Amino acid sequence: MSKKVILASTSTLYNGGYLEYLLPVLKQHFENVKTLLFIPYARPGGISHEEYTHKVGNAFSPINITVKGLHEFENAKEAIQKAEAIFTGGGNTFLLVSHLYELDLIDTLKATIESGTPYLGTSAGSNIAGLTINNTNDMPIVLPKSFTTLGIINFNLNPHYLDPIEGLAHMGETRETRINEFHTVSKIPVLGLREGSWLEVYGEDVFLRGPLTARLFRSGEFAVEMAPGENLNFL
Amino acid sequence: MSKKVILASTSTLYNGGYLEYLLPVLKQHFENVKTLLFIPYARPGGISHEEYTHKVGNAFSPINITVKGLHEFENAKEAIQKAEAIFTGGGNTFLLVSHLYELDLIDTLKATIESGTPYLGTSAGSNIAGLTINNTNDMPIVLPKSFTTLGIINFNLNPHYLDPIEGLAHMGETRETRINEFHTVSKIPVLGLREGSWLEVYGEDVFLRGPLTARLFRSGEFAVEMAPGENLNFL
Repeated sequence: MSKKVILASTSTLYNGGYLEYLLPVLKQHFENVKTLLFIPYARPGGISHEEYTHKVGNAFSPINITVKGLHEFENAKEAIQKAEAIFTGGGNTFLLVSHLYELDLIDTLKATIESGTPYLGTSAGSNIAGLTINNTNDMPIVLPKSFTTLGIINFNLNPHYLDPIEGLAHMGETRETRINEFHTVSKIPVLGLREGSWLEVYGEDVFLRGPLTARLFRSGEFAVEMAPGENLNFL
Repeated sequence: MSKKVILASTSTLYNGGYLEYLLPVLKQHFENVKTLLFIPYARPGGISHEEYTHKVGNAFSPINITVKGLHEFENAKEAIQKAEAIFTGGGNTFLLVSHLYELDLIDTLKATIESGTPYLGTSAGSNIAGLTINNTNDMPIVLPKSFTTLGIINFNLNPHYLDPIEGLAHMGETRETRINEFHTVSKIPVLGLREGSWLEVYGEDVFLRGPLTARLFRSGEFAVEMAPGENLNFL
């Protein structure tokens, strides 16, 4: 089998419910899936694994998918390997990656997704599908053992990509400045994925979906806007 | 001797020149200093150590202080120990801390500042004066050996502190949300220092300076606004 992956910039759009805008897509992506394995380790706002899993369960109930949290299993590796489908939710990327390394789940998760188990990531859960988490926006509240992640795609993501806000007197760096700084120390391409965009990774294809363009940054080149429907498999 | 330290949120205010707003304060802070040792490792925008040091030299020439970059010395530890005064500039906090660890300079820098050598930090250079860099806003473009830093103050800083922007449809976390997330895993207090604010650490005192209040976050307590002139030595 081959990869079947959705990587969304965000779980939630402004004025929308949790996963609401993605639900029609997920219904198809998770066709025939009865039970979804949820990885709650990114703990947005510090909520518990139980609370987070409950929230995700509510979101998937309209499409008749039952959700189980990875924390409920004694053998996490086995739970991943045997899962019908996997979803990693957003929150703090450093917390997520630290916990995945602590439990030695990186290799298992990568192999399972590459073998064809359908996967969904949102925000931090999408970030870990890149080569490294060097382009997360999150605050480094814990120090993971490594920044290297799953490499389901051959580049990095910057979820919640934000264009410079006109007229803002704040002197902190823009997102573009930060990504350009990264390219003074690395050659890994970075895709700035705006809220409302997602990637569909089916086999070797990497399609940009949603209504918006995405901003592609490559070391030593001008940033370019990729149109919806484009295939990023050239990266 | 005792500590004589200025930790500024930013080097530059909107519509102002580099270090311009701080220059009257620095003239007094660096009274009798002829040569300032500059630590350029945070490399904002990836500029070279030489370019960055040149920029800082220009900024200090109106108050008759000569600037030498730490990269110009063969023995960096000795250069720190013998410095009349030290300035660490802003840029990428991860790059700065990685390089300080690579050169084994953390302990030397801490001991030198604590022994009374006047110090100035801006942005990333202020961040490292806290206990850890867990509250930087920067992108983690490299992985440092540790997030533990100088502990010149007994809490952490969030420089360029930004209040939530009203009416923004972006769903990425606010700065306050991120700091609250930190407090689900740590008890270290965090001071959100707005652009235009700085701390004066003289001996055991930690005064908030500049025209603005600063937002203090403590684990399990409501965030509070500290007024200019308040002494944060209770933390």
